[in-house]
Amino acid sequence: MDIIVVRQGATDKEVRQVVKKLEGKGFKANISKGTERTVIGVIGDTSKITEEESNTFEALPGVEKVLRIIQPYKLASRSFKPENTLIKVGRHVIGGKKIQVIAGPCAVENMATLLKIAEEVKKAGAAFIRGGAFKPRTSPYSFQGLREEGLRYLAETRKKTGMPVVTEIMDPRDINAILEYTDIIQIGARNMQNFRLLQEVGSYDKPVLLKRGLSATIKELLMAAEYIMSEGNNKVILCERGIRTFETETRNTLDLSAVPVLKGLSHLPVIVDPSHGVGKRHLIPPMAKAAVAAGADGLIIEVHTHPENALSDGEQSLKPDKFRVLMNELRAVAKAVGREI
Amino acid sequence: MDIIVVRQGATDKEVRQVVKKLEGKGFKANISKGTERTVIGVIGDTSKITEEESNTFEALPGVEKVLRIIQPYKLASRSFKPENTLIKVGRHVIGGKKIQVIAGPCAVENMATLLKIAEEVKKAGAAFIRGGAFKPRTSPYSFQGLREEGLRYLAETRKKTGMPVVTEIMDPRDINAILEYTDIIQIGARNMQNFRLLQEVGSYDKPVLLKRGLSATIKELLMAAEYIMSEGNNKVILCERGIRTFETETRNTLDLSAVPVLKGLSHLPVIVDPSHGVGKRHLIPPMAKAAVAAGADGLIIEVHTHPENALSDGEQSLKPDKFRVLMNELRAVAKAVGREI
Amino acid sequence: MDIIVVRQGATDKEVRQVVKKLEGKGFKANISKGTERTVIGVIGDTSKITEEESNTFEALPGVEKVLRIIQPYKLASRSFKPENTLIKVGRHVIGGKKIQVIAGPCAVENMATLLKIAEEVKKAGAAFIRGGAFKPRTSPYSFQGLREEGLRYLAETRKKTGMPVVTEIMDPRDINAILEYTDIIQIGARNMQNFRLLQEVGSYDKPVLLKRGLSATIKELLMAAEYIMSEGNNKVILCERGIRTFETETRNTLDLSAVPVLKGLSHLPVIVDPSHGVGKRHLIPPMAKAAVAAGADGLIIEVHTHPENALSDGEQSLKPDKFRVLMNELRAVAKAVGREI
Amino acid sequence: MDIIVVRQGATDKEVRQVVKKLEGKGFKANISKGTERTVIGVIGDTSKITEEESNTFEALPGVEKVLRIIQPYKLASRSFKPENTLIKVGRHVIGGKKIQVIAGPCAVENMATLLKIAEEVKKAGAAFIRGGAFKPRTSPYSFQGLREEGLRYLAETRKKTGMPVVTEIMDPRDINAILEYTDIIQIGARNMQNFRLLQEVGSYDKPVLLKRGLSATIKELLMAAEYIMSEGNNKVILCERGIRTFETETRNTLDLSAVPVLKGLSHLPVIVDPSHGVGKRHLIPPMAKAAVAAGADGLIIEVHTHPENALSDGEQSLKPDKFRVLMNELRAVAKAVGREI
Repeated sequence: MDIIVVRQGATDKEVRQVVKKLEGKGFKANISKGTERTVIGVIGDTSKITEEESNTFEALPGVEKVLRIIQPYKLASRSFKPENTLIKVGRHVIGGKKIQVIAGPCAVENMATLLKIAEEVKKAGAAFIRGGAFKPRTSPYSFQGLREEGLRYLAETRKKTGMPVVTEIMDPRDINAILEYTDIIQIGARNMQNFRLLQEVGSYDKPVLLKRGLSATIKELLMAAEYIMSEGNNKVILCERGIRTFETETRNTLDLSAVPVLKGLSHLPVIVDPSHGVGKRHLIPPMAKAAVAAGADGLIIEVHTHPENALSDGEQSLKPDKFRVLMNELRAVAKAVGREI
Repeated sequence: MDIIVVRQGATDKEVRQVVKKLEGKGFKANISKGTERTVIGVIGDTSKITEEESNTFEALPGVEKVLRIIQPYKLASRSFKPENTLIKVGRHVIGGKKIQVIAGPCAVENMATLLKIAEEVKKAGAAFIRGGAFKPRTSPYSFQGLREEGLRYLAETRKKTGMPVVTEIMDPRDINAILEYTDIIQIGARNMQNFRLLQEVGSYDKPVLLKRGLSATIKELLMAAEYIMSEGNNKVILCERGIRTFETETRNTLDLSAVPVLKGLSHLPVIVDPSHGVGKRHLIPPMAKAAVAAGADGLIIEVHTHPENALSDGEQSLKPDKFRVLMNELRAVAKAVGREI
Repeated sequence: MDIIVVRQGATDKEVRQVVKKLEGKGFKANISKGTERTVIGVIGDTSKITEEESNTFEALPGVEKVLRIIQPYKLASRSFKPENTLIKVGRHVIGGKKIQVIAGPCAVENMATLLKIAEEVKKAGAAFIRGGAFKPRTSPYSFQGLREEGLRYLAETRKKTGMPVVTEIMDPRDINAILEYTDIIQIGARNMQNFRLLQEVGSYDKPVLLKRGLSATIKELLMAAEYIMSEGNNKVILCERGIRTFETETRNTLDLSAVPVLKGLSHLPVIVDPSHGVGKRHLIPPMAKAAVAAGADGLIIEVHTHPENALSDGEQSLKPDKFRVLMNELRAVAKAVGREI
Repeated sequence: MDIIVVRQGATDKEVRQVVKKLEGKGFKANISKGTERTVIGVIGDTSKITEEESNTFEALPGVEKVLRIIQPYKLASRSFKPENTLIKVGRHVIGGKKIQVIAGPCAVENMATLLKIAEEVKKAGAAFIRGGAFKPRTSPYSFQGLREEGLRYLAETRKKTGMPVVTEIMDPRDINAILEYTDIIQIGARNMQNFRLLQEVGSYDKPVLLKRGLSATIKELLMAAEYIMSEGNNKVILCERGIRTFETETRNTLDLSAVPVLKGLSHLPVIVDPSHGVGKRHLIPPMAKAAVAAGADGLIIEVHTHPENALSDGEQSLKPDKFRVLMNELRAVAKAVGREI
């Protein structure tokens, strides 16, 4: 059911033209004449109307706007699949009662540091190790990551600790290396609408952690998930990581209301990245606890043994001892909302 | 300590002019010549430099910008007063270990409904009753509140239930009526920078609940608190109630990171209004729990016995039974973070 | 004509309840059952439905949302009054073919400086003198204006130069002084939703320059104009002065598209304030020219003889000689778009 | 010259640690002790300090923040290259006195329509033809473009009309086809921080039209240009196309102040896309004129012979007759600001 609002003062001929076009596409029109406006209800399966078809109606003379009532995403929507999606990675499940914690350094720097961090976060209760081998940096002169060497370190760490690996893909041409060494492929915020990359990761049977873009609406995040799922890969994990606003005290504004909104609109698991969300170390613990209280299915947290030497994001990395304290606090909050960690 | 950045290519004469002006105001200048830029450190108590004096430096030829290192608020800052401010209202304390809950209808509609709601929320554990007698409405044709009649209903409700009353002031000319009937004066988001109103409420010894403006930065919120405090009234309660962003799934974007940021920068109590923050009933419970987990000192929640008949904000009001369930859940979360409710 | 979208899975009983409520208010319901959604068209004069009544429908069980097709403002809308409103101030007309320029210092500082600036801007072609006597400052410690003394200087300047005076009101209690000394009352951005102040200036027959709030939508600006007009004062001049965004290179983001949007939706004159819009002196000329090319009916520009000593906004004030050059450039652009200056 | 602000209450040892680290990297430290704060000026060529090195200072105990005075972009900056960059494409120059107009349909649909549009816009005075062969669409179910077939139509149109071709690249794997058929490669707003794609187009000697991201700051846009230029390709054309804000009357908020800001910070040509900026047909002419008045070096405008049948963006496409009228109006505005079209 879509609705076409007719411009004030539109002629009968213009209205008939809209109706004729609708009927030509197999829909029925329900015309409601108000005292000031006329609106046309579109009867039929409007979910099949594409964005561009809808636009062609908006471009007709006499039409003020087209209101789409149907959600533009399907496979990602909870009305399509009412029960929660559970994503199995090794012996872990994302989206179930247990809240999963992914932790590790922003960037993979060398084998020893990575392994040390992995052992620390595992001891504290994290199930997954994260680390960037390909790094999207604002400046071309910044550290761009160890690339394939970094992927090998991650795989080695997985072998030694048993922790599944999460890492980011930036270029569809890296897909084979990423598939070989990794357990969950991350799509970063800046690539949330890199549609070719979404289609690429959608064509493999590998879980995808999809981060919300800096200024992406919730609907656009779900449409990005739809891009992946429409290629056949239903293993999508949504991630809120802060949006861009006018506020400058925090790096981004962590939109925790996105958690219950996404859980309502979609069956996909939703995790939160408080590290990028706030960008300041001392704000991470309160926001991690808040994320769990808001209903998140998981957390992704940056941890580094020597943040002051980290090649990236040191100011937003927790040290292992602080991470351990946080994990204990998270356990209490998780229990309070009927979850476990 | 302020810093003046000199424009690339500025002349020595221009730099000397800046230094002379600084010295004329009793400061010393520390000039650092870099290979590309020169910066001038201002030595002395720059906290006394007002905004407009700072601007006159920025307007000098040769000056690119003035960086102010000192926070522009003083009385509201934690460096001025390290320990938490506790605000006593009757037998209740805001800002202590106990998280205080303020509940009630958006607008006062009639005596019977108000009293019924007050009894319900009191039973569930709320300490304060809220209700608007003067309503700031976007449209001049919308219900503007019962005005003084509404204030009398609030006072009557306090008498019958013992609950202190929170209500909004919109006009300095209403101050006497508000002072007579109310326990906490609310400054609404749209009036956060109504500086005359801030000064008015600052000149009485009555607690003020100051809501963050729709697009106010955290610094501006603290400056608004400073306006009140500079008149002598230190009883300011800060309230995060959602900011305006591009996202449309929620009425506003509730910025929960503002809670730990404000608790770090200021000694004032911080409460959260999830009802206006999200604007949709089913999102209020998760965000209320998240607010407590993030460290809020209190919550202000809209409750109505018949939201579908409410004269304002019905779609974001909880019914008493849902509010009771929420209060129980909040107790568990509060306990998990070392607080009580 | 309003539209009520029914929640997916709503029961027939819920739909009937909505229809019954509509009929109880004198409307007819036009039900369209789609394959996935049902929508209810509301037939009748829905322009009389207030915001709160609309909300009571949204709060009904089974209702997902209410879409309002009717613009919420009436008196301010071009459909209510198709021809442009012309506002006469002395021998000048705002809203006609001639683009009017208001110029002067941010704040009135002393008689001599004000008069000097007025003479300079008059010579360059400005018709109106501006200057703040009551200043809304972010900090309570900043210069708050000369208050009534400043108003007297403005009146004296008008007497000597013949230029009508524009100045800001911050508090309804100052209305009599403002009315006595001024020709156009300015409502500042921070007071755009100070509804009591809007009603106050709406009850006199004095032109009002209404500035768009920092994060006000165009619809909210028009609703603020409606507040003034609903009290009987139709002489409202709308002013775009920059909105708050994430960009930090400019003080605000000047939304010039607001000019043609407002001219389309409303019959009121629209002027632009490039000084506050960008906040940096060298950006004012290009943006002033762009404003004229976009169709603005006027400009308000800060000019100061000694910006480096200005008590406020020196960094965004033009010196008289630059203002003179700009006025000449503006004449050429105005002519190119069929206007004059 | 960078500045390190020391946290209030930091110990002497912490300050010494910062100084030691600075000296270890070959810099000198200039310590200014204020009454409330200490700041450390960094003496030496700080332009060589990368983002991550800067972060490692921010992560040191005792450091509050690092203020970078040096612009992070170099090749793109006007201080690096003071004179305007002129980009030659065939017999046309972008960045000179003549304002260049790029026009055409949003998407290439078929040969006949494309050619017809090209002939029309050429007659009206446009120098370049635009058209998307690869289309970044929010929905995976929307028309994705004719791909290589579309590129061939563009090349054919160039052959018949002599107009150079502008088209978008979405995937580095398409680079060879794009290079073969096109004259200017467009990077779309959603790919502005697709760093691998930037590096790819940076490694060829082909002009790049780089669109500002939906929520990219001006600094980030210049850093994206730097990515391209750091690979050796200096032929970058910057394009303002509207940013995402809270306003919904327009599709985006066209930030025309970006034009003079970019012209000040960089030597690269700056063009404006009013079609995407506002998204509504009737707003395009006033904003195109405003862009020219603000100093734009060019415009990119969507034109379609049958917008109501366009497969994409019909509601924001001008018909050829309106485009012709606009071009005449633009000529007058260009002349008024000392340019030609």
